[in-house]
Amino acid sequence: MTAGPAPGFPVVGMIGGGQLARMSQEAALALGVSLRVLAASPEESAARGGGDIRWGAHDDPAAVAAFAQGCDVVTFDHEHVPAPILAALVAAGITVRPGPAALAHAQDKVHMRAAVSASGVPCPAWAVVAGPADVAAFAEAQGGFPVVLKVSRGGYDGRGVWVVESAAHAEQVLAQAPLRPGVAWLAEQYVPFTRELAAQVARSPSGQVAVYPVARTVQTDGICTEVVAPCPGLADEHALAAQQVALRIAEALDVVGMLAVELFDTPEGVLVNELAMRPHNSGHWTIEGAVTSQFENHLRAVLDLPLGAPEARAPFAVMVNVLGGEHPDLYAAYRHVMARDPGLKVHLYGKDVRPGRKVGHVTAYGDDLDVLLARAHHAADYISGVIDE
Amino acid sequence: MTAGPAPGFPVVGMIGGGQLARMSQEAALALGVSLRVLAASPEESAARGGGDIRWGAHDDPAAVAAFAQGCDVVTFDHEHVPAPILAALVAAGITVRPGPAALAHAQDKVHMRAAVSASGVPCPAWAVVAGPADVAAFAEAQGGFPVVLKVSRGGYDGRGVWVVESAAHAEQVLAQAPLRPGVAWLAEQYVPFTRELAAQVARSPSGQVAVYPVARTVQTDGICTEVVAPCPGLADEHALAAQQVALRIAEALDVVGMLAVELFDTPEGVLVNELAMRPHNSGHWTIEGAVTSQFENHLRAVLDLPLGAPEARAPFAVMVNVLGGEHPDLYAAYRHVMARDPGLKVHLYGKDVRPGRKVGHVTAYGDDLDVLLARAHHAADYISGVIDE
Repeated sequence: MTAGPAPGFPVVGMIGGGQLARMSQEAALALGVSLRVLAASPEESAARGGGDIRWGAHDDPAAVAAFAQGCDVVTFDHEHVPAPILAALVAAGITVRPGPAALAHAQDKVHMRAAVSASGVPCPAWAVVAGPADVAAFAEAQGGFPVVLKVSRGGYDGRGVWVVESAAHAEQVLAQAPLRPGVAWLAEQYVPFTRELAAQVARSPSGQVAVYPVARTVQTDGICTEVVAPCPGLADEHALAAQQVALRIAEALDVVGMLAVELFDTPEGVLVNELAMRPHNSGHWTIEGAVTSQFENHLRAVLDLPLGAPEARAPFAVMVNVLGGEHPDLYAAYRHVMARDPGLKVHLYGKDVRPGRKVGHVTAYGDDLDVLLARAHHAADYISGVIDE
Repeated sequence: MTAGPAPGFPVVGMIGGGQLARMSQEAALALGVSLRVLAASPEESAARGGGDIRWGAHDDPAAVAAFAQGCDVVTFDHEHVPAPILAALVAAGITVRPGPAALAHAQDKVHMRAAVSASGVPCPAWAVVAGPADVAAFAEAQGGFPVVLKVSRGGYDGRGVWVVESAAHAEQVLAQAPLRPGVAWLAEQYVPFTRELAAQVARSPSGQVAVYPVARTVQTDGICTEVVAPCPGLADEHALAAQQVALRIAEALDVVGMLAVELFDTPEGVLVNELAMRPHNSGHWTIEGAVTSQFENHLRAVLDLPLGAPEARAPFAVMVNVLGGEHPDLYAAYRHVMARDPGLKVHLYGKDVRPGRKVGHVTAYGDDLDVLLARAHHAADYISGVIDE
């Protein structure tokens, strides 16, 4: 036997079976809508969680086309679906949200930089570079090294990003990785930021928006490791500027669903670093910390349902990622953490442990930020195996 | 392909595919444990939600035995699994929580009344009655009619319960329904209560308990229609007494998992009405209203994981059930409710609409109880179709 959606209720298809799909499934169960997930292997987080899982790769045109049949709308766990596959879905009459034209900005950093700059939103200085001489010229125009080198497509969690300190270093980076066709090198101004911020908005096809409180994020080796929301001590004008940047980008790029804009906060103002058009690690705190989670609002947005309130529910929420460590048995450590801190919310994604891999996150909320940070970091470190008491 | 649990993580088997299994699935996804559900048809709430669904009836010995293989622990969405099937599971070495001896009290009201009375917990006066003469004698001992008549097994949502006003009325009730073997008639004192309360505790095999704030419940035609938690205006000694009753029953009956005790509050104190050993309608408010939901704590308890904090997160949470009405299209009404009240949490269960059937619930939380009640009732009535503006 197979079960279908409730009468009159839509099916959302999500391409990609990672933890974002898994957490989206929690939201879909509450909303009463059906989430169908295209996963590539039974080891993926959403597949481990069960649900309406269909098997296939996100870059297999036939698998994606077959998956999309019967979905009322198709959306994404990640931004790696090739543009020709997206174009074919649209040509076949499938509703794809965010649409391919919007999603292109999350897939290609050059495309994103050009569009964001054109919309008048402040960015670091940037240039497409073809070789070491271009990097040296770019650096000189910025007053010298360091500068940041990025591949335009396919990087994530710090992969595909280098801070280069000299022309020789740039040469070394450019030489190491032969680029695939369609991928370019991007040089960006190195920004000595005060802190990193994330501004998230949900936007529906009809243009309704819900704006989340601005969060402070910490990246370690390019991986988001800590998020505090709302950002403590952020001047009102910087918070408002960050939210306005996210709103302007959502409108300029016609984003549908969740948009996360990662920003550098500097004494002179905020600058756009990266963006993502899906639920994002910087918004996991919203599950317990906001009235409506980013996962619920992504589903509501892509279904063109009215959006839920994005307000924070606590003075602070602290989210810390659990990264895989040396020991594979998360369950024993998990028991210990639960016993130690009954108010902590632990989310594990059902993934096999590999060192440095995101396998879960913890969230603590309340009013004493130092205590929340200590609780969340202790728990994450204990589950990871970094500490044993 | 099929997906299994994450390495080292357990599989919880839940017999019954109703909305309690569906909401348990949300909790299991976050915890990283696997929930496997035995559902009888693809129209059931949990089946509609997707997940690791196995097909079979809860009263089919072979189906239940096959289902239990591969589950680390078996628990329940309802209390209707026949005792011989539970005994066979235990004999086969399956871990069943709550265990059959405990569950018997949730299955049979005579058994429950005897055990609760024996444990010294205050109950309405009660007696097993064989016919109208017994009912008349019982009524006389209580100072006259009305008295309550109940079937000992199989009733729920008001079914199997009658308030009888006279000997003639009792005769009529007793005549209408031939009882199945093993089912008895129970007469109970009619309690003119001040209000109805629900006290919930989670209890683990190791004896750890988590005690939820006491909620006020309203039943309409025997169906729970409104819950407010914590109960407004409840004297501390009555709240404490209700919690102590739940704790004493949990220990006396060796309950593992969630226990819900429905109580009558009277000027003289609290009296036990009914009990359930699973997540219960009176605890749906805990999803948003408590630090740890009843669904999460039920899973934690049956897995013998440390329990989560049961504290309320808001001054009040109001839960109102959405009952099926005349029109089958919940989705259109749902959009309207979302647009009207972005802070309301709407839960729909994916069920086909039938008049009077529980098809979802809404929760509003905050500090102004009158406003919360108005918001929740308006939304529930609108989705049901009772009102159209």
